[in-house]
Amino acid sequence: MSKMSAAVFDGQLRYEKSYPLPHPQPGWAMIQVQKAGICKTDMEVMKGYLGFRGILGHEFVGRVESCDDLTLIGKRVVGEINAACGRCTWCTRGLGRHCASRRTLGILDLNGCMAEFCVLPRENLFVVPDEISDERAVLTEPLSAACEILEQLPIRGNERIVVMGDGGLGILCAWVLTTVAPDVTILGHHHTKLSLAKWRGIKTVQGFDRVESGADIVVEATGTGQGIVEAMALCRPRGIIVLKSTVASQGDLNLAPVVIHEQTVIGSRCGRFRDGLAMMQRFPDMPLERMFTAHYPLESVEAAFDRARDKHVLKVILDIAS
Amino acid sequence: MSKMSAAVFDGQLRYEKSYPLPHPQPGWAMIQVQKAGICKTDMEVMKGYLGFRGILGHEFVGRVESCDDLTLIGKRVVGEINAACGRCTWCTRGLGRHCASRRTLGILDLNGCMAEFCVLPRENLFVVPDEISDERAVLTEPLSAACEILEQLPIRGNERIVVMGDGGLGILCAWVLTTVAPDVTILGHHHTKLSLAKWRGIKTVQGFDRVESGADIVVEATGTGQGIVEAMALCRPRGIIVLKSTVASQGDLNLAPVVIHEQTVIGSRCGRFRDGLAMMQRFPDMPLERMFTAHYPLESVEAAFDRARDKHVLKVILDIAS
Repeated sequence: MSKMSAAVFDGQLRYEKSYPLPHPQPGWAMIQVQKAGICKTDMEVMKGYLGFRGILGHEFVGRVESCDDLTLIGKRVVGEINAACGRCTWCTRGLGRHCASRRTLGILDLNGCMAEFCVLPRENLFVVPDEISDERAVLTEPLSAACEILEQLPIRGNERIVVMGDGGLGILCAWVLTTVAPDVTILGHHHTKLSLAKWRGIKTVQGFDRVESGADIVVEATGTGQGIVEAMALCRPRGIIVLKSTVASQGDLNLAPVVIHEQTVIGSRCGRFRDGLAMMQRFPDMPLERMFTAHYPLESVEAAFDRARDKHVLKVILDIAS
Repeated sequence: MSKMSAAVFDGQLRYEKSYPLPHPQPGWAMIQVQKAGICKTDMEVMKGYLGFRGILGHEFVGRVESCDDLTLIGKRVVGEINAACGRCTWCTRGLGRHCASRRTLGILDLNGCMAEFCVLPRENLFVVPDEISDERAVLTEPLSAACEILEQLPIRGNERIVVMGDGGLGILCAWVLTTVAPDVTILGHHHTKLSLAKWRGIKTVQGFDRVESGADIVVEATGTGQGIVEAMALCRPRGIIVLKSTVASQGDLNLAPVVIHEQTVIGSRCGRFRDGLAMMQRFPDMPLERMFTAHYPLESVEAAFDRARDKHVLKVILDIAS
């Protein structure tokens, strides 16, 4: 077997039955992918974000097929998506996700996980604890990205927090934030997704103009270029806006409100998988299962992406191997 | 005397000889303006920023003509530019410059200082110490705005700081920052202004592409909408960008680099006059005099603005009374 099936983007998305198998370098592992998740970032990649060409996908759970570290073989793993150089200032500080020569799974110079096999550096892999299901494990990447906010901001717990966007990342951010601060409101346009977002004391508001402004922290997770405009309006003077959306193009934008109100805008991207997995272990009642709207086999990847584009859909999973 | 001369903007800038005198409310002072400075913000106001109509100008030194507080009469003063309500959350915290119902001298709902007289709340006024000249005193407003960075950021002193923009505010930011951190570089396009910017160990670089990226702190003071694009490129991952430019419109902007590199963007506006005056007292050798390119009488305000628009000019002063 030297070929595999894969979901390839080369300007257009297509299912390919005989894509070359990846060859892991020394120190890298080959992983048989069990499940992969479709993320809004995949849509941005397909719009031209970072000019990526190759196998899509960066959310997965799989089993280690081969690896220099023999103790890992056969283990169920998830993997951090940035393959860093391991030697630069950032890497030596444990911040490989900022390494200037990093490659990123399914996003930048590295084939992704929507395939029978993918490769990643051994140190990117985390064995999934038994009590975490395959489906929950697929959410480690976006859940860790939500946890990144806790690493970046000192949250005291008495802040009024508004999360903009009822997509998967918005909901995960609200869930993570409500574990440290009780006053969290999530704003969205979709009744169904907002109903799914309710957990602990999270308030949901349909319509962005129906919430009081003056929030201490606003998390912008709308996935749109213009979300920051509303975020500046919702945030109090000297408040904090966390930018979670990366979009291929943003359009006309005026940051004068940030200057006038002396707001702080913090870009927030990937998080540590350790934190995401710990969050799942600490909060087994976090209702991650609500996120899964549909499952598709890999050969139906085009239909799966069509489904994932539906604004009422949260997470679509590709079932690749059992 | 119930009329005065003034520089009025009503869609066009004009010198008016018989503008109605202002009437100070209780608690406000009437100030006879001696000198007023022309600021790039005045140009933005004339481009439509905040839709202002009325007397321009927010940088001045003057003498108190009338005031409930009789001890102030005849005193040489400068004045903070935001007239706040005095009662809201912000005002009670001493942050009246964020009061939602504030009016701002020559910028928002309040006639400015390019006139024989202007009015401001008594608590906005600061008596100018004798050792500070009239000309230096006119710079209290922009110097305090530069000092605001020190209030907002914890600067340890070992940071590599890049200031973008060799205009008046950029140079003042560089001068203020070099008092706390030795590694400050100022970037600009104009040889003459960059030469004037040299003080202490400040490095000057002509051309924005000629400086190494990876700065810890980047101050964006170009006064252009696209300066932030270069700022994102110059700043290191997880570094800080201080936004000083307020522009009427910014154009197409994509903040993806902020998210990808998890940069922090901090809007920074007016500062406390106390800090600006203290800076002048503490550093009498700060070469503020270099900033003054030209003086004009008020009736030549149009010529003065034409001169101030010249890219090689730093600060143009209107001499209104002695």
